[in-house]
Amino acid sequence: MFYFSSVSVNLVLSHIKIVLMETSHPGNIGAVARAMKNMAMSNLRLVSPKIFPSADATSRASGANDILSKAEIYDSLSDAIADCQIVLGASARDRTISWPELTARECAEKYAGLEGALTTKVAIVFGRENSGLKNHELDLCHYLLRIPCNSDYSSLNLAAAVQVVSYELFIATGQREESTIGDKDADPLASQKQMDLFYQHLQQTIADIGFLHADKTQSVMRRLRRIFNRIELDTKELDILRGIFRYSQNHNKK
Amino acid sequence: MFYFSSVSVNLVLSHIKIVLMETSHPGNIGAVARAMKNMAMSNLRLVSPKIFPSADATSRASGANDILSKAEIYDSLSDAIADCQIVLGASARDRTISWPELTARECAEKYAGLEGALTTKVAIVFGRENSGLKNHELDLCHYLLRIPCNSDYSSLNLAAAVQVVSYELFIATGQREESTIGDKDADPLASQKQMDLFYQHLQQTIADIGFLHADKTQSVMRRLRRIFNRIELDTKELDILRGIFRYSQNHNKK
Repeated sequence: MFYFSSVSVNLVLSHIKIVLMETSHPGNIGAVARAMKNMAMSNLRLVSPKIFPSADATSRASGANDILSKAEIYDSLSDAIADCQIVLGASARDRTISWPELTARECAEKYAGLEGALTTKVAIVFGRENSGLKNHELDLCHYLLRIPCNSDYSSLNLAAAVQVVSYELFIATGQREESTIGDKDADPLASQKQMDLFYQHLQQTIADIGFLHADKTQSVMRRLRRIFNRIELDTKELDILRGIFRYSQNHNKK
Repeated sequence: MFYFSSVSVNLVLSHIKIVLMETSHPGNIGAVARAMKNMAMSNLRLVSPKIFPSADATSRASGANDILSKAEIYDSLSDAIADCQIVLGASARDRTISWPELTARECAEKYAGLEGALTTKVAIVFGRENSGLKNHELDLCHYLLRIPCNSDYSSLNLAAAVQVVSYELFIATGQREESTIGDKDADPLASQKQMDLFYQHLQQTIADIGFLHADKTQSVMRRLRRIFNRIELDTKELDILRGIFRYSQNHNKK
């Protein structure tokens, strides 16, 4: 189910901090913790949360309490990002001053993907639920981080925004790994040779049951190849289908 | 801020339905509506929701009430997907039978991106909050849709899962050029209803020819569904295969 070991992921993602700015609803903090943990992120920093800790936060965290309990709390954004080398401000707001911008995917590729240095400390700052980040806070950011979305309805829920960004970071870490591990338990795909035998058997079967008229052999078999080539049969599946062919043929003889 | 006009996005995304299976908490339905609208999705179908409509749903929808108010409600999953040609089941994988799988990104590229035909009707089914989708529900799906995530903590909140999938679909539509419209000459893909009849016919056929023993019906049919769901049969191909089934059956009687 999983592309890579937790160890290598954590190594990449442990350098990335999620910073929440003056969050109003503690439930949102909990939902953010859950979203982060789902994507193997672990570093949460809270700048002057309205209410924290809170039963609402714990309830919405739904098992990601470890992230809440080690969340670091700061009085100001500048303190929260003091040790970070790159700061991105997640913000949907239209602004008169155009800020250098990265999409969530570009950010992930740059700081968690192949391009990224393992040692760069990155902070991604998410603004208040209703009013986002202020301009003097954006002044502290190297980039605006933008989540592409419906221009007519662009305000994502805080945890949803963290979910999308964390997801992109997680996906990008997978691109660092040389090899993705396939499903070891799966039966091997049928070889070309096995598929040749499969088609011979299929052709013989539909001839035996009277479906195949000689003058249409080529066009019918071409269509059937088009169908079965698409499936990428594994050897077990191929055996099942050839079993069905045999029964069709033998019934004819009884 | 935005990659493309709403018109072209809607044209692509209007063929994709989000189906929620027996959702327990109405707040989650509202949060799903918001997540969808953020990503320009609009078609929501609910199978036997525990409580709906509900003030909780409306509150969490936060301005996406239009999606709630036109949500369609069904008694069964098969009714909810009857008009769909491709069905994906969003589910964490932990099953004895391995199902053909697409990641959220692969799904988006296939059905909303450059590869996808504008006319293919796609349903993406999300299971219950606690217990996901049952095997007999997955039997109706062509693919498992998997969101890559932390293997040690893989249960995403329902709305978070819909957010990630909708985000990927939205991003994929941006990769699509106006000019890439699917192959007009191709036969349409078989609908879920047609595939139901196909499987009924297949089951009857292999029973008639003696291949199917009653005690193995379920496991054999599950494997065969896994094979034929992968092919995404068009209507012409389906006719050919059912023709072969008929000949197999009739030969038996001669």
